[in-house]
Amino acid sequence: MAGIGIVAAQCAHFTEALKLKGGGLLPAFDLVYETYGTLNAAKSNAILVCHALSGHHHVAGRTADEFGKPTANIGWWDNIVGPGRPLDTERFFIVGVNNLGGCHGSTGPASINPATAKPWGADFPVVTVEDWVDSQARLADHLGIEAWAAVMGGSLGGMQAMQWTLSYPGRVRHALVIAAAPKLSAENIAFNDVARQAILTDPDFHGGHFYEHGVRPLRGLRLARMLGHITYLSDDQMAEKFGRRLRVGAGSYGFDVEFEIESYLRYQGDKFAGVFDANTYLRMTKALDYFDPALDFDDDLARALARARAGFLVVAFTTDWRFSPERSREIVHALVHNGQDVAYAEIDSAHGHDSFLMDEPHYHAVVANYLKRIKP
Amino acid sequence: MAGIGIVAAQCAHFTEALKLKGGGLLPAFDLVYETYGTLNAAKSNAILVCHALSGHHHVAGRTADEFGKPTANIGWWDNIVGPGRPLDTERFFIVGVNNLGGCHGSTGPASINPATAKPWGADFPVVTVEDWVDSQARLADHLGIEAWAAVMGGSLGGMQAMQWTLSYPGRVRHALVIAAAPKLSAENIAFNDVARQAILTDPDFHGGHFYEHGVRPLRGLRLARMLGHITYLSDDQMAEKFGRRLRVGAGSYGFDVEFEIESYLRYQGDKFAGVFDANTYLRMTKALDYFDPALDFDDDLARALARARAGFLVVAFTTDWRFSPERSREIVHALVHNGQDVAYAEIDSAHGHDSFLMDEPHYHAVVANYLKRIKP
Repeated sequence: MAGIGIVAAQCAHFTEALKLKGGGLLPAFDLVYETYGTLNAAKSNAILVCHALSGHHHVAGRTADEFGKPTANIGWWDNIVGPGRPLDTERFFIVGVNNLGGCHGSTGPASINPATAKPWGADFPVVTVEDWVDSQARLADHLGIEAWAAVMGGSLGGMQAMQWTLSYPGRVRHALVIAAAPKLSAENIAFNDVARQAILTDPDFHGGHFYEHGVRPLRGLRLARMLGHITYLSDDQMAEKFGRRLRVGAGSYGFDVEFEIESYLRYQGDKFAGVFDANTYLRMTKALDYFDPALDFDDDLARALARARAGFLVVAFTTDWRFSPERSREIVHALVHNGQDVAYAEIDSAHGHDSFLMDEPHYHAVVANYLKRIKP
Repeated sequence: MAGIGIVAAQCAHFTEALKLKGGGLLPAFDLVYETYGTLNAAKSNAILVCHALSGHHHVAGRTADEFGKPTANIGWWDNIVGPGRPLDTERFFIVGVNNLGGCHGSTGPASINPATAKPWGADFPVVTVEDWVDSQARLADHLGIEAWAAVMGGSLGGMQAMQWTLSYPGRVRHALVIAAAPKLSAENIAFNDVARQAILTDPDFHGGHFYEHGVRPLRGLRLARMLGHITYLSDDQMAEKFGRRLRVGAGSYGFDVEFEIESYLRYQGDKFAGVFDANTYLRMTKALDYFDPALDFDDDLARALARARAGFLVVAFTTDWRFSPERSREIVHALVHNGQDVAYAEIDSAHGHDSFLMDEPHYHAVVANYLKRIKP
């Protein structure tokens, strides 16, 4: 089945300052986004796709080169978006957006701070899931969308979908919360903190103002990504994919790559460090750590979610140990407790946390059939 | 119950070069060790305690200050060694040794390389579990011990106990293999490799020759230890001990310590980086990665263990996810398959991999009662 072909990003400029949860205001800002499919006349068929830690607005299709030919730059969730795919572009109008603080076009730490005419760097504020949802609401206004048919995301993206139902209960009809959690565990925070410390202690970080020094904290970002990858995969999957296989010529009794898993992680780390912004990485992990909608409700998630009016689809994956099915069930139990509308699917998948990005037939059927019930 | 009081380390010097598994020879070397209890006339009551990644020879008791008074420097396994304790010094003669490549007195990367009259640094060879066992056999010779009543250890120490039964089947009557595994999984290796990369890419590492530069790769070693600690604790234990509790004054929306788990990990990382040697850390993790007694037996652990003549006690802890009970059961199954003498205990403990160091009554009873059956 063909995908949606060539896509192009757009940029929306917002001149009204955004009040942030951490205090302070973000002055005029840009959000870069892509859309797929056609917004209907009633503007009732729009689905917002929220991205996770390292994602962006380029959800589906391929970008074009200077001659208008499709490049290899395919969207990160292309397998689920397109004509006849679960997020069916023949029925829905899909919106992907790069979050504030990102490094793919939206205003972020590498953008110019109007107050200093230099990159924001360390002075770019820490943004939260709530702030992202507020900024996405501005984008909805910009597109003339009063209410989303659905807001959807995996991992940190699923947290945004959940937050939408709480920040704007009247503006989201359905929330698809995939491979997420109602808040991070101490262990989740611990992994994030080691990743952040790797970046913060890299001598090339320069307190977050590395842009001015013409360097980037590649070492720290590389370590952060290597560590992240361990938590995205399942132990079984790693065993099956890499086992203890030695690379050809290995067995050197030294510190070069010897096991295939080392080669894989270092490659992933190098690739990521080459393209991602360290200040963005720090902020994305902090947004994860801070997310905790039950905090103001004595840790009572049911009370926290009571104001949501959306229907929910919650999806978890059996081998996900970053946000295990148990964490998704906390969300489901709270919603069921409240008598809210929720469907839950626990998908048997070998791919750990990364399963939400995979082309698992059962998972895609669950999403497709849930969305089929939605009347645009 | 009182412990064993003040102890003092001894040093054995070996002049015959040691042939290493990785090729090459280690010239004359020192092993630093401590002993507790009294070797009987038949020299049949000796137990060797092998240490794990960051351990050393100071297993029990307290070292003395310059005035002969006991210091706060208590042995890392003091709770299990002493009069009336599971390793009962009234019956057994206990030996703790710092492994080759270590940083607590035995010959290691910070020692002087006789060929250059400078610290070995990066030129100190990668040593394996097999090499350690060979060097420990020299120490047994030095002490006049023909056969150990038992060799015992947790984690990497348990691997040494297992290797003793294979390298010197006639010289070890019992092996106590605690919180160990027959080899590392791809995920285990992955964690080790991220830790190593943190050290290797620290600008202060200087290719392993940092001694000559008057610096130490503190950043890398700190990250390695922080990461290690995550894998030593259980998720539940972290949740119970730290939860998502914020430190007083936290909630800054910045990158200082905010959650208690961050404070704990950074403290552990700083403390360790202040005292441990980075080149030792690299070598200890490599010894873990390489350990794989079944490698030469088509991955058939039963065949690999067939030559052992020792009795085995294998102990695992329910919440240990670094070396889960499943990994211990692989060892047990192989031994049972062969009709070898093995007892297995799976201890319900909340403390993850670190449980082997804890004072768990059921665990200590299992060890004590196993050792009571041994006739010195």
